[in-house]
Amino acid sequence: MKDVNNPFGIGKKIEGNNFIGNAYLLSLANADWDENFSVSTVTFEAKARNNWHTHPHGQILIATDGIGYYQEENKAVVILKKGDVIKCQPNVKHWHGASHNSSFSHLVVMYAPSNEAVVWMEPVTNEYYNEVSK
Amino acid sequence: MKDVNNPFGIGKKIEGNNFIGNAYLLSLANADWDENFSVSTVTFEAKARNNWHTHPHGQILIATDGIGYYQEENKAVVILKKGDVIKCQPNVKHWHGASHNSSFSHLVVMYAPSNEAVVWMEPVTNEYYNEVSK
Repeated sequence: MKDVNNPFGIGKKIEGNNFIGNAYLLSLANADWDENFSVSTVTFEAKARNNWHTHPHGQILIATDGIGYYQEENKAVVILKKGDVIKCQPNVKHWHGASHNSSFSHLVVMYAPSNEAVVWMEPVTNEYYNEVSK
Repeated sequence: MKDVNNPFGIGKKIEGNNFIGNAYLLSLANADWDENFSVSTVTFEAKARNNWHTHPHGQILIATDGIGYYQEENKAVVILKKGDVIKCQPNVKHWHGASHNSSFSHLVVMYAPSNEAVVWMEPVTNEYYNEVSK
C-alpha cells in the first residue's frame, strides 16, 4: 500500500460487499477475559470507504494516520486526522473511510457481542462520495 | 514536556500518590451510551511510572509514542514501543511507565465501572525500577 504508515500494522484485506475500494483489518486485542471487548485497526486506501451502517452497541474510532471522512446521516462530512476521536452512537447510521488523495487508518474500539457489532446497509456510491466530499 | 509527541494530546498532570515522577492523563472518549466503556491516553515523562496495581475488569494498553516498560509480578520487564499492545488480565498485579531515557505514551481502553477500575498497591521504588530495567 502506498503512503500508509499505520504503526499498528495493516492486516488482511476485507472481503465481501460491505466496502468500496480496498480496506484492511487487523485485530489488535480481544480481551480474552470478556469476548465483547475488542480493539482493532482498519486501514483504507484513498477513496475506499465502508457502506452505510449502524452499531447497536456503539463504537469508538481513533484516527491514527492519513486523512479520512466520517459522516452521519443528514449531517456534513467530518474530516479526520491523526488524534481525532469519534463516538459512533448506538443505532446512528453513518459511514467512514479515506479521503480522495490520502489513505486513512483508525483504531476501532468496540464493546459488543460479535453478532451484534454492526448492521450493514447500502453502499456509499461514487456519486454520493464525490458530492459530499468535494 | 520534552521529547513527547502524543498525537492524542497530553492532558493534565496526575496528582496523588499512585505515581512516581510526572504523568499526564487525557480522557479521549467516554461512551455516553455506556459509562463503563472509556478510552484515554496517559503520558509518562522519562522514568515516571505508576504503582503496582490490578484491574478487576482488565485493561488494554496501546503504545503510541516513546519507549516504555510493562511488568507483571514475577515476570521480566517488557519494553514497549509505538504499536505494541498489552492485555492486562483481570487481577494480575503489574506496573507500567516510561523508560530511563524516553518519555512514553499509551492509549488505555477500559470496560469497567469507575469504582472498580483499579486497585492501587505499593510504589515501584527507584531501587526496584533501576534493578529490573538495567
